[in-house]
Amino acid sequence: MEKEQILQLLDEKSYRQLREATEDMQPADLAEMLEEMDLRQRLLVFRLMKKDVAAETFAYLDNDARSEMVEAFSDAELTSALEQMALDDAADLLEEMPVSVVKRVLSRSDPHTRDALNRLLTYPADSAGSIMTPEYVRLRRGTTVADAFTAIRRQGEQAETVYICYVVERNRLEGVVTARDLLLANPDDSIDELMDENVIRVQVTDDKEFVANEMNRYGFMAMPVVDSEGFMVGIVTLDDASDVLIEEATEDIQKMAAIAAPPEDSYFSTSVWAHARSRIPWLLILMLSATFTGMIITHYENAFAALPLLVSFIPMLMDTSGNCGNQSSTLMVRGLALGDIRPADILRVIFKEARVALLVGLVLAAANGLRIFVMYRDLRLAVLISVTLVLAILIAKLIGCSLPLLVQRVGLDPALMASPFITTIVDACAITIYFSIATRMFQIS
Amino acid sequence: MEKEQILQLLDEKSYRQLREATEDMQPADLAEMLEEMDLRQRLLVFRLMKKDVAAETFAYLDNDARSEMVEAFSDAELTSALEQMALDDAADLLEEMPVSVVKRVLSRSDPHTRDALNRLLTYPADSAGSIMTPEYVRLRRGTTVADAFTAIRRQGEQAETVYICYVVERNRLEGVVTARDLLLANPDDSIDELMDENVIRVQVTDDKEFVANEMNRYGFMAMPVVDSEGFMVGIVTLDDASDVLIEEATEDIQKMAAIAAPPEDSYFSTSVWAHARSRIPWLLILMLSATFTGMIITHYENAFAALPLLVSFIPMLMDTSGNCGNQSSTLMVRGLALGDIRPADILRVIFKEARVALLVGLVLAAANGLRIFVMYRDLRLAVLISVTLVLAILIAKLIGCSLPLLVQRVGLDPALMASPFITTIVDACAITIYFSIATRMFQIS
Repeated sequence: MEKEQILQLLDEKSYRQLREATEDMQPADLAEMLEEMDLRQRLLVFRLMKKDVAAETFAYLDNDARSEMVEAFSDAELTSALEQMALDDAADLLEEMPVSVVKRVLSRSDPHTRDALNRLLTYPADSAGSIMTPEYVRLRRGTTVADAFTAIRRQGEQAETVYICYVVERNRLEGVVTARDLLLANPDDSIDELMDENVIRVQVTDDKEFVANEMNRYGFMAMPVVDSEGFMVGIVTLDDASDVLIEEATEDIQKMAAIAAPPEDSYFSTSVWAHARSRIPWLLILMLSATFTGMIITHYENAFAALPLLVSFIPMLMDTSGNCGNQSSTLMVRGLALGDIRPADILRVIFKEARVALLVGLVLAAANGLRIFVMYRDLRLAVLISVTLVLAILIAKLIGCSLPLLVQRVGLDPALMASPFITTIVDACAITIYFSIATRMFQIS
Repeated sequence: MEKEQILQLLDEKSYRQLREATEDMQPADLAEMLEEMDLRQRLLVFRLMKKDVAAETFAYLDNDARSEMVEAFSDAELTSALEQMALDDAADLLEEMPVSVVKRVLSRSDPHTRDALNRLLTYPADSAGSIMTPEYVRLRRGTTVADAFTAIRRQGEQAETVYICYVVERNRLEGVVTARDLLLANPDDSIDELMDENVIRVQVTDDKEFVANEMNRYGFMAMPVVDSEGFMVGIVTLDDASDVLIEEATEDIQKMAAIAAPPEDSYFSTSVWAHARSRIPWLLILMLSATFTGMIITHYENAFAALPLLVSFIPMLMDTSGNCGNQSSTLMVRGLALGDIRPADILRVIFKEARVALLVGLVLAAANGLRIFVMYRDLRLAVLISVTLVLAILIAKLIGCSLPLLVQRVGLDPALMASPFITTIVDACAITIYFSIATRMFQIS
């Protein structure tokens, strides 16, 4: 069923057919369609949908469309929508709503849901607790495969995944068994023989990025989460873990482009003010630090008063060393995020980058030196630029690779230190090297 | 079992205990341990492991460790390792090996495997075909739930996932049913009632990034792949799709940092030569284009001969407009990759970025104008810098947001056009604006 047909049914007021048509569509597609409607139409179609279709669709809507709808909802509607959602999604949604709405919703929810939501809402924003769900299939030791299927059938409606089941005794996680193992086993087998007792688990306070990386590393569909006393409190599922990894990549990319506290919404859902607010702080800091490079240049006023041509190489030297520093810092930031590089590797990294820098520097110096000699027939100028390039590139790459690792070591976010900040530092270095060699070479004081 | 204990068992030559110990460990952890050993030890431990543990571990090894081992393997060992792997992983591994080895391995494989591998090896590198597996659970119309479980049990050992089953008649995909649906249903129900007939599918030639994004959007665990005639040829599973999204993010980040054809291996597995090769091309291009900015500066030699202070603002203007351009281009590249922004949105984007640019520009101009007035007590200079900043930031943001979208429109990779290239262009613009206002304002010709 195409979107155009749905819109036509809406126009024709063929509401029953519309209701049926939405049943055959993917919730993600329905959500996209709703996002493009105005609020009145969107509410109408949403209310026409079957309850479970509506709830699923609701989970796929973007924040903007969702908050508009939540505002228009009655308390009953909101509570019902939330009750149909997975608990972790419901908690995420509540987190974005005003306290008064949260209180109203919680007071209307059944005690079990209220309890679970309250607990989920207390976990720190970037913790495993914030992305986990307390709804998983729990089995007991000694259960047969056949009984396990009965348990799955009983708990399955609520659970976020029925494919990974946990053997839990007195709230302690004792084993894990997959639906695949159960499906391939004999109905009379005991799960004690099937289950894996060496269960990798994470703490509820662990960073969500760490959890997502671990799940990715082990290839897990779900990761059990325990609290500080070792009691099982929930699971993180693969879909939420992938979202974390993708969000983190986006955040790193934006931080590296000097966007502070990147907006969580999509580009268009973020207001002009919010965009400006996230971009101004770093630009201001970097603008003022670049003045420092300017002061270095002023210091060498006599040099370019005597030889104005010197000024024309400033952009090339600044850009090249900035780019070289960025290449190195970017590789570090990404390597750290993916776990390929650890802060302790700093010496290995420096040794490797130094060799890369020399290779890169020699090639660039040769190319540019030759160009300058051909253009200006001035060997001294060619040598000046070539030597400056080799040294500036070496320093740019060493700063570019070591700063992110040092920053990570002291517990800060390496992406924050990345590209623009490093550009500013290496710019200053390049200009200093350039003019100090130039003044000596051309004997300008 | 900790790594240290394994190493101790190895030292003590307690091979039987070592074999048993590895059975309780996660393949990902075993792989990490093997990677840190020298080749001799690694082969020894690998050969001590149980066949299935060894095969699983092999799939988690990094390329370096794997190719070293493959070289040391006998043909029989290699074929057996490959036969234990999932077909898509085996095909990926073969792709990296010399043709002679591939031929030897294929000639030793059983006809079914050989056939499947051959087919997988022919799909283009970035297509859905290159990441799919032909091993999935296939059911027939009219099957009961109980019989479906029997079918899953029969096909499950081979299949990459048993959780999503496809109803296929005469090689045509007619429906999809999840193990969850089956588990929660009655054994006598027919799968015809349970299955969803509106199956989203992709073409075997579709780009793998598109497939991964679609799976992410729909929240699918697996995506069926059909060929040009509509015949079902395989499925893409979520783990492979997540890998694609994470790799793409890494690649985009690296391209935006002027790293051409980013190395596919991890930082340390890539040689100094390969690193240098991937970094030099863009640096050379950007270095030569920055000379263009230098020439613009030379053109205004008289201006800074008369007023040398003008030169000291060059780094600040260049950095600020570069950073502004990068912020915009980065948001575009990421938005395009995640599907939040489409090339057709260009006018909306330009309108939004223009307003953000004015806000940002006014704040930065005010801050810097004030600083300059306080430092130099020169109103004209303060006005010059402020006006230049507003104009340069506006142009930087407009170029930064529109170039990636235009590049995507003509079918090129927007990340390639990103940061450094845009920096060079906006630098030239900023310098031109600066000096043309300056010469008019201070009446220098």
